[in-house]
Amino acid sequence: MTSSALEQAVRVYVAAWSTADEAARRALLGRCFAAEGRYVDPAAQVHGRDALVAHARRFADRWPGSSIALTSGVDEHNGAGCFTWRVVGPDGETLRDYVAVDGDGRLNEVRGFFGSYRSPHQTD
Amino acid sequence: MTSSALEQAVRVYVAAWSTADEAARRALLGRCFAAEGRYVDPAAQVHGRDALVAHARRFADRWPGSSIALTSGVDEHNGAGCFTWRVVGPDGETLRDYVAVDGDGRLNEVRGFFGSYRSPHQTD
Repeated sequence: MTSSALEQAVRVYVAAWSTADEAARRALLGRCFAAEGRYVDPAAQVHGRDALVAHARRFADRWPGSSIALTSGVDEHNGAGCFTWRVVGPDGETLRDYVAVDGDGRLNEVRGFFGSYRSPHQTD
Repeated sequence: MTSSALEQAVRVYVAAWSTADEAARRALLGRCFAAEGRYVDPAAQVHGRDALVAHARRFADRWPGSSIALTSGVDEHNGAGCFTWRVVGPDGETLRDYVAVDGDGRLNEVRGFFGSYRSPHQTD
């Protein structure tokens, strides 16, 4: 069972979002997220690892005891990948992330999409 | 029913892959794909619109009469989006694309992933 640098980064990234410990979260993001990496989801645009540490702290503070879990494998080629995940809890919804890694194997782009794919004919 | 620049670009892009006419394909990609845009899937790394026109021509030549169809809505925020699609045919498989647009509303990055999401515990 071998895993790529990108897949390892994703697993450390998931662990970072799943710990309540501030120092552990910072250390984990230090291993897996680029110093100048970008995190963008429908609710937040975050630039840089330090800002992501703060963003993840707000998540942990708001939903104490929460964690996230991968709900798919990491589908990867040519330095980018995608996977689905959900917040562990009774109303856990599936979310999808697109990620890319830099030459050091750290995530330098995370693009999150919330919910499942819509029907092709559905409009907002 | 309004649609964003990104969604419009995606729909023109799908039309470009679905025509057998070389001139039409070139014109459609001229409208929706950036001159220096990048297209990457597990089988091809293509840089620039002219190279993508040639790549799409090989697709059309290899599978005459083929077309592609969106199988999900275009899920979009902050200048990037994702959607699923398939090649129309008896063995049409679902594929997933991540795309981003430039300031002119043309796709400047397309990252394609083949097949459905794997189980989280499955390895290659």
